[in-house]
Amino acid sequence: MTLKRARRLSRGVAIVGAGMSKFGAFKEKSSRDLFVEAFAEMKGSVDKGLDAAEIESLYIGNFSSDLFEGQGHLAPIIADWLGLLPRPATRVEDACASSGVALRMGILAIASGLYDVVLAGGVEKMSNLPTERVTDTLAMASDALYEIPAGLTFPGIFAIMATAHMQRYGTQPEHFMRIAVKNHQNGALNPKAQLGSTIQQVMQSRVARAKERGQPAPPWRDEMDFLHDAQANPVVAWPMRLFDCSPISDGAACVLLAAADVASRFTDKPVHIIGSGQGSGPALHTSDELTSLSAAKVAARQAYEMAGVTPKDIKIAEVHDCFTIAEVVASEDLGFFAPGQGGFAAAEGATALHGERPINTSGGLKSKGHPVGASGVAQAIEVWKQMRGEAGARQARKGKVDVALTHNVGGTGGTCVVHIYERR
Amino acid sequence: MTLKRARRLSRGVAIVGAGMSKFGAFKEKSSRDLFVEAFAEMKGSVDKGLDAAEIESLYIGNFSSDLFEGQGHLAPIIADWLGLLPRPATRVEDACASSGVALRMGILAIASGLYDVVLAGGVEKMSNLPTERVTDTLAMASDALYEIPAGLTFPGIFAIMATAHMQRYGTQPEHFMRIAVKNHQNGALNPKAQLGSTIQQVMQSRVARAKERGQPAPPWRDEMDFLHDAQANPVVAWPMRLFDCSPISDGAACVLLAAADVASRFTDKPVHIIGSGQGSGPALHTSDELTSLSAAKVAARQAYEMAGVTPKDIKIAEVHDCFTIAEVVASEDLGFFAPGQGGFAAAEGATALHGERPINTSGGLKSKGHPVGASGVAQAIEVWKQMRGEAGARQARKGKVDVALTHNVGGTGGTCVVHIYERR
Repeated sequence: MTLKRARRLSRGVAIVGAGMSKFGAFKEKSSRDLFVEAFAEMKGSVDKGLDAAEIESLYIGNFSSDLFEGQGHLAPIIADWLGLLPRPATRVEDACASSGVALRMGILAIASGLYDVVLAGGVEKMSNLPTERVTDTLAMASDALYEIPAGLTFPGIFAIMATAHMQRYGTQPEHFMRIAVKNHQNGALNPKAQLGSTIQQVMQSRVARAKERGQPAPPWRDEMDFLHDAQANPVVAWPMRLFDCSPISDGAACVLLAAADVASRFTDKPVHIIGSGQGSGPALHTSDELTSLSAAKVAARQAYEMAGVTPKDIKIAEVHDCFTIAEVVASEDLGFFAPGQGGFAAAEGATALHGERPINTSGGLKSKGHPVGASGVAQAIEVWKQMRGEAGARQARKGKVDVALTHNVGGTGGTCVVHIYERR
Repeated sequence: MTLKRARRLSRGVAIVGAGMSKFGAFKEKSSRDLFVEAFAEMKGSVDKGLDAAEIESLYIGNFSSDLFEGQGHLAPIIADWLGLLPRPATRVEDACASSGVALRMGILAIASGLYDVVLAGGVEKMSNLPTERVTDTLAMASDALYEIPAGLTFPGIFAIMATAHMQRYGTQPEHFMRIAVKNHQNGALNPKAQLGSTIQQVMQSRVARAKERGQPAPPWRDEMDFLHDAQANPVVAWPMRLFDCSPISDGAACVLLAAADVASRFTDKPVHIIGSGQGSGPALHTSDELTSLSAAKVAARQAYEMAGVTPKDIKIAEVHDCFTIAEVVASEDLGFFAPGQGGFAAAEGATALHGERPINTSGGLKSKGHPVGASGVAQAIEVWKQMRGEAGARQARKGKVDVALTHNVGGTGGTCVVHIYERR
């Protein structure tokens, strides 16, 4: 089956407002509370102000409020809590790519001519359940007939990809660790991040705690020592250790989308969405290869073609680093680095905040947190801030980010959605 | 908040193929199996043939394969099983309106200019779970924070609407029973129906069984006697009795959508979708009234305005009769009858197959079955058949159905989506 060349949308679409809740574990909050928090920040972000009545439709990404909160049919409830009834509200689910796909649905809805102004967002409230039940719930994003019965959970699935990448390309566990160090460094500059400490800071607090308790000081000279320490950084599924894994998170994120021809009603600094691609891939057990995601390559090609840009044009990217190996694979699937080179490039600093190709300036899912249904739109929010020069201490390229990309994966590549953004 | 006048889509869209699985309880089948069955029938229905490679994107309605089958992220798995990788595949969830909304997403996706040919479908596999767990699962489509803790399940919620309707308008349980009789009559003419027997046939088989067992013949003179019999037709939540409730169902349905300008590649008898509306409403516990659904009225108004027709123009309608009271309310919300008149009109035969305004010629959810994520698209399939004069023994209006409507509700009116169709 050949893919036709991606066509253009009949109408341009821009982001004109963006907001997110703090990401973390908030036992006392529901999805509704988190979304209301994100919405309030979004409203405040609209330069020329927003009358909520201007919002014509809602697309809300969510993986499984059914299982996490016992609440299905979440979209109209959120519309109600935002005061947006009787606006149509649709939940979009493609596992961890749910809100990346919700963003795409919002874009298509505006391009259809039906709406000028749409809210696209996502939310997940995961911390209600004990960790093992979260793991079981997330495993349902793989193939429940063929993979779960084989004993696979997500750390195991990504560990398989990591070992395949190591075997094929010589990637080492230290490459993965370097990505964790980088993303924690970025996340420490992001006030919304769940794990808002650098690895250095984590080490220092552990040293201080040992001292308080009169225990011997841990024998770590640097971050690599810490990350190799089997007690401080235990193996989850080799070679993925604790600090290679994104946390269990609660959070919500939303962006206000407007047709390009009405964007100036809301802001003089819109972020235009110039490319959108989405692909589906096989479950891991039927994949032809384990070191890249076919859906990501398809989605990227569509987005690049629609945008008329190449990987070289992308100044920063937010990619789906649910595990550190996923960032390696993403950076290759997106064409930033040749296959096999993603880990080496990251370890050499190419993807650092002030490297040649900053990746995950927000801290990524790894440090910012990964409320799965919210992550795709949260990526778009980071791009929005960076492109408007509003990323504060973690601002990349001195605020000169004219073209950026987000890459959001569902399951083990069953879904991938890629967006490309432009500030003119 | 005022709604702006519904605008037109930038591009026309038509149904050019349609197929569904048998509806029923199929212990040995999964969602995938059911969808493959529906897809095969759809392929066969395309007059000029379909190369599956022409399908550019999939929108799949599903309420909760997570809870029913332990499978999240269903859409790309279905794409894989249909041989449609790497096409983008998106799950849409709005409770029992999931596939009505998936249909709308497919329409918007084509109108956006991105695609010419899209598959919209839905599936639910409910019979795996014991009845009480199905009821609990469906209850998650209401408000889990405020309604479920009050002990409400769906039969109870619709019973509240029914008693309110009775109190306000003088509607009687017999009105509901007449709708059950009608829908079973229609369903008995539909080979895909789960409950494919008339109430008369059900009575006859019970009489025969009693005879076989040497028990006294039941004292029923007609259907009304049977439906008043507390043993034969027990109260579920008064006034809703067993035969007022749709069954627990497994099934899948899909339609092939094409841009109007390419529809002739597939058929010379397309069914054009000329109106689409979607609204959100409050959960029942915050509704201002109990005898109509605000989301349905909003969705209907949008659809009528987009189509440029009025309720009088609608020749047949498939409405969301998850319970018989829901059909009464739908027929009023859609403007077919004045508020309070829906039950009286149905009892007088106005909505019968050969009445002045046939409703649920398919048998409706009540008799055809209600695999919740598939019901919205299954409604569109009935309209497709009726409008093409291919409805066989249940053909309405001697095949002359030029304008038709479908009405699909999620939860207790949290979502409603209405579509209007035309054969030119």
